[in-house]
Amino acid sequence: MSKPYVVGIDIGGTNTVFGIVDARGAVIASSSIKTLKHSDVNAYIDELYSEVTRLLEANDAVDKVHGIGIGAPNANYYTGMIEKLVNIPWPTPLPLAQMVSEKFGIPVAITNDANAAAIGEMTYGAARGLKNFIMITLGTGVGSGIVINGQLVYGHDGFAGELGHTIMKRNNGRLCGCGRTGCLEAYCSASGVARTAREFLEVRQDPSLLRDIPVESITSKDVYDAAVAGDKLANEIFEYTGNILGEAFADFTVFSSPEAIILFGGLAKSGELLMRPLRESMEKNMMNMFKGKVRLLLSELKEADAAVLGASALGWEAKMPTPMTMPAAPAVE
Amino acid sequence: MSKPYVVGIDIGGTNTVFGIVDARGAVIASSSIKTLKHSDVNAYIDELYSEVTRLLEANDAVDKVHGIGIGAPNANYYTGMIEKLVNIPWPTPLPLAQMVSEKFGIPVAITNDANAAAIGEMTYGAARGLKNFIMITLGTGVGSGIVINGQLVYGHDGFAGELGHTIMKRNNGRLCGCGRTGCLEAYCSASGVARTAREFLEVRQDPSLLRDIPVESITSKDVYDAAVAGDKLANEIFEYTGNILGEAFADFTVFSSPEAIILFGGLAKSGELLMRPLRESMEKNMMNMFKGKVRLLLSELKEADAAVLGASALGWEAKMPTPMTMPAAPAVE
Repeated sequence: MSKPYVVGIDIGGTNTVFGIVDARGAVIASSSIKTLKHSDVNAYIDELYSEVTRLLEANDAVDKVHGIGIGAPNANYYTGMIEKLVNIPWPTPLPLAQMVSEKFGIPVAITNDANAAAIGEMTYGAARGLKNFIMITLGTGVGSGIVINGQLVYGHDGFAGELGHTIMKRNNGRLCGCGRTGCLEAYCSASGVARTAREFLEVRQDPSLLRDIPVESITSKDVYDAAVAGDKLANEIFEYTGNILGEAFADFTVFSSPEAIILFGGLAKSGELLMRPLRESMEKNMMNMFKGKVRLLLSELKEADAAVLGASALGWEAKMPTPMTMPAAPAVE
Repeated sequence: MSKPYVVGIDIGGTNTVFGIVDARGAVIASSSIKTLKHSDVNAYIDELYSEVTRLLEANDAVDKVHGIGIGAPNANYYTGMIEKLVNIPWPTPLPLAQMVSEKFGIPVAITNDANAAAIGEMTYGAARGLKNFIMITLGTGVGSGIVINGQLVYGHDGFAGELGHTIMKRNNGRLCGCGRTGCLEAYCSASGVARTAREFLEVRQDPSLLRDIPVESITSKDVYDAAVAGDKLANEIFEYTGNILGEAFADFTVFSSPEAIILFGGLAKSGELLMRPLRESMEKNMMNMFKGKVRLLLSELKEADAAVLGASALGWEAKMPTPMTMPAAPAVE
């Protein structure tokens, strides 16, 4: 590899974080800009270009970048497009990979944030050496990146791996952001945990530290703090959450029989509060032939670096678009 | 390819069917033996050898066989072992691939019947040219073979693709043969349809042609015949079955985003009786981003030949085991 670095860019609803990464996964330097500073996407890319260039210059890395990897919501690896944006006012579908590649003169590959996390974990983290695993990100939503035979699963259209939208409750399920009801994400995301808290507080009478907090402002962090303080109701919320997550993981296993399921994101840092009921539920619900075989692992990427690292790993395989087309979809004929 | 033929062997609980297949998927000749004639597996393999050899001689195909592919229940592609047998009294785990390969002096690969069906469909049938699809076999049970990026999904241990054991009813689900409750197979297999008939007949009062049949002997074929004859209750059984199958297919889609789901097996021949409610339920339950994208296809393999064809397709990639080990598991490290 003649050029020793890649650049990872993680586009979030608030911040766009970027960094220069070497082949061992060390983040040489990183910085960020405000994603929403520019409502015009071209002005955004101009600022991104000047700030990334400034960082490269400061680290003697100009002309040493093999490729750029971008993690962004609803980004399609095959087409290089962002298909949909919720809190960012840029027009969609947006040919982001092509636009950034033309601006920088460097190959660019993009994928969604959960897929980027899976690639980062496989390249630098807990999934090194694993060829069959599932990455689950427990954040505001529940994201997933699936690896089978060492390859990220994109499906025929680039959108595979939406495991947060597996239906876990077919009757009276909670409304999900996707418009349907009963999705895993509506229960096991950070916001799902907060919803569970509000439900439990409403239907139950027993005392709880959580009753001291205005009910609409309760967060998963509040539930965590209360549980750590020994609050019974808060502990039962984690029990409830881990139970549903374990049911889901048992179903995922009959699909792809992964060697490990790797957890990332804020909720994953709840430790045994979540992991014990999750592990118990997963094993209890597991089909016999898979019992005891699937390891539950936590991400080994440092949280501050994880998004940039995950995105950057894509940069190693990025290719320049041909003048006529974006990179062809490898799995579509 | 210097040797123009493969042999496909499908080991069922009653019959073992085998055939000589050419590279275009033509079954040159086929025959069968009774699987249970010998309780000793060595005697079974001896008879299989002499009958297959007789067939090869009659078709001038001796020394022209590239490899043998075997489809068998609970067969593991990675290890060449049959892990478990239900109605066949041979000892397990059984190193079948090795035993057959040593007897014939020809490379042998084995997999379970649903995986064999998927490979057969990809090689010779409705999935030619597809790189991302799911094969669902609706027989006594519900089997599946999953193809992603043109590769069959075996998972880290060889047992991936047990989609018939996805949980569809988390409360008061029917007992499944796997020991758990609420599995897809307990509802949408041929025996599941018969169970639905018994449930419907018990809790409902309306007249039905099915009431003329002793309730314990009702089969899915009886339900089909009654539905075709216009019986309302029998039609509702197909509606119920298709609805659950569609819910399952929508969940499978968020995992691997397949281009098509291909149906095979007795129930799949129910035509629009099953396909209409299945299609409607799948689209109704589908996450928006996948709506209208997944084609429902029927197997294009002739039923009489399908099992042999599917197994035979494995023969093209079979390799001789090394003296020390069976073929190493490519995805396990």
